[in-house]
Amino acid sequence: SRSLNLAVIPGDGIGQEVVAEGLKVLSAVLPQDVKLETKEYDFGAKRYHATGETLTDADLDALKQHDAILLGAIGDPSVPSGVLERGFLLKLRFAFDHHVNLRPSKLLPGVATPLAGQPEIDFVVVREGTEGPYTGNGGTIRTGTPHEVATEVSVNTAFGVERVVRDAFARAQARPRQKLTLVHKNNVLTFAGHLWTNIFNKVAAEYPEVATEYIHVDAATIYLVTQPERFDVIVTDNLFGDIITDLAAAVSGGIGVAASGNINPSGAFPSMFEPVHGSAPDIAGLGKADPTATVLSVALLLRHLGHDAEAARIEDAVSADLAERGAKPARSTSEIGDALSVRVAG
Amino acid sequence: SRSLNLAVIPGDGIGQEVVAEGLKVLSAVLPQDVKLETKEYDFGAKRYHATGETLTDADLDALKQHDAILLGAIGDPSVPSGVLERGFLLKLRFAFDHHVNLRPSKLLPGVATPLAGQPEIDFVVVREGTEGPYTGNGGTIRTGTPHEVATEVSVNTAFGVERVVRDAFARAQARPRQKLTLVHKNNVLTFAGHLWTNIFNKVAAEYPEVATEYIHVDAATIYLVTQPERFDVIVTDNLFGDIITDLAAAVSGGIGVAASGNINPSGAFPSMFEPVHGSAPDIAGLGKADPTATVLSVALLLRHLGHDAEAARIEDAVSADLAERGAKPARSTSEIGDALSVRVAG
Ligand SMILES: CC(C)[C@H](C(=O)O)[C@@H](O)C(=O)O
Ligand SMILES: CC(C)[C@H](C(=O)O)[C@@H](O)C(=O)O
Repeated sequence: SRSLNLAVIPGDGIGQEVVAEGLKVLSAVLPQDVKLETKEYDFGAKRYHATGETLTDADLDALKQHDAILLGAIGDPSVPSGVLERGFLLKLRFAFDHHVNLRPSKLLPGVATPLAGQPEIDFVVVREGTEGPYTGNGGTIRTGTPHEVATEVSVNTAFGVERVVRDAFARAQARPRQKLTLVHKNNVLTFAGHLWTNIFNKVAAEYPEVATEYIHVDAATIYLVTQPERFDVIVTDNLFGDIITDLAAAVSGGIGVAASGNINPSGAFPSMFEPVHGSAPDIAGLGKADPTATVLSVALLLRHLGHDAEAARIEDAVSADLAERGAKPARSTSEIGDALSVRVAG
Repeated sequence: SRSLNLAVIPGDGIGQEVVAEGLKVLSAVLPQDVKLETKEYDFGAKRYHATGETLTDADLDALKQHDAILLGAIGDPSVPSGVLERGFLLKLRFAFDHHVNLRPSKLLPGVATPLAGQPEIDFVVVREGTEGPYTGNGGTIRTGTPHEVATEVSVNTAFGVERVVRDAFARAQARPRQKLTLVHKNNVLTFAGHLWTNIFNKVAAEYPEVATEYIHVDAATIYLVTQPERFDVIVTDNLFGDIITDLAAAVSGGIGVAASGNINPSGAFPSMFEPVHGSAPDIAGLGKADPTATVLSVALLLRHLGHDAEAARIEDAVSADLAERGAKPARSTSEIGDALSVRVAG
């Protein structure tokens, strides 16, 4: 009999509520012969305030034992900006070498978009997750004085760029439209930009079926609102990926439905799956949060672990649920989770 | 009698066509007693191919003699990415210390937007123009090998941040809504982000009338498509400003109408005004380019030099022209320029 040994990190704010629904749907979709084991971890603002810890070496050792990690949200206004982000979220991505940050965007029928004319949106962003301006390199001198200088160093390696570009080409080749867009700013950030562009062009030669294009990040934001249908797979740097995936989420149904995977394709460390939205402290505890993004993150998790049929069942359930939302009164977090559980089991 | 001594840089692609219309409207709007002198400069791809030069010290000395600079567009596919951008556009911004990059976004009545429901959009982005990831700091080692490392260094100084933050507060205070939003990514880029945030908060204390908020750049892209009306003045870093102003242009009528000023508020060097769009080589020479963005850049130029009434006449003419566009057949570049010239003179 098979098993799924999951680390669960509800985290802060609405993280608790949405993760509960994600687990509910996961239990409902899993075949009888897959034994689900979950272990909950208390990372986030509460633990930070109580102990000053964000993520210790012992924590990392414990997390390593799991097949995958499901995360709700980390972040609270009571903690200074950057402490939990750098001390937990980014520390985990870097420690477990989550270099493929996968963020699909699909505008499902019946879902509201801020764009006029209900465009066709179905693309996936492969965001690099372990390099670029996210490395924490840099510093300050004369801190707090009128002569302060603060630097941020974007670090990019051929090794790091090539592995994520290869991952993106493989994904593009496996999709019907077989198109890959590189998004960067190679006319200004020429050192990193030329590295990305040269590796992209080199790997492209091995994938003659995949149509390629290059778009500057500023222009990409224009296309995301004027021609989102032009995109199939996008590969991009860590920071550009952060920015364009929030925009992509906004145009394809909002961050209430945007899922993501922080993937280590080698399997050397467990991958982590999380909704793109944050902890939304303003609505925490009210049962108002939409658990759909977490449920879709569970689908990404299942697909990553090879449970493709179950992943598809979740995605179909979400599509069906979203299609009916316009016609129905608003539901609570757990009502949406219940409805999705019924659908995936049915 | 007064004079206006203008450097004109048509540049590449549609730059030639749109600048001609900008000058046409400028001549039509200027009062009789203002003597307009223009000198054309041949910067861009042609000169680069002929001489290998992009912008020499002698060029900078010549440009310094002018009251202001009007630029069309620089860039051509025949020139490797980055050469003209770093060698001309950015070199000029840095040499003339254009630290206030001003980019207004206003959705005028009758103008198409990709957003549903015709939202109210009327904000201005104050983008820092001489620091951040645009400094050209960084480099590569083991270039072209599988062990290449490429870095990009974002350089931020208290001096550079404070002057642009002060400029933005002054602009916010002078506007009816008196609101200023800082856009950064201070939870990840903590060194630069805290510098920006601390200075923003310090200067805010001197402007009690101005309401302030902080938004991460990724979230800002969401608000730009879901709640653009929330913005009044935005102040941000050079790269974030590049990205969000293209998105802002897209939602408020497109880059066909987006104007910008590269301003040195001290007047130590002439300021430069240019449409946000590029050289669009695919439509160059066809008379299809919309000169409106250039004409609005001329309005920014006039306002910068104190010709407020003339600037307003241009803006009113553009509003009236745009309001009627939907009902009329498409016009050529020069027909639009002619129509605007008639309106500003009338
Ligand atoms: C919270 C923050 C560290 C994170 C990021 O910037 O990657 C978030 O915005 C995201 O997109 O997952
Ligand atoms: C062409 C490029 C150097 C420039 C920039 O990145 O600033 C352009 O995108 C702009 O916004 O003016």
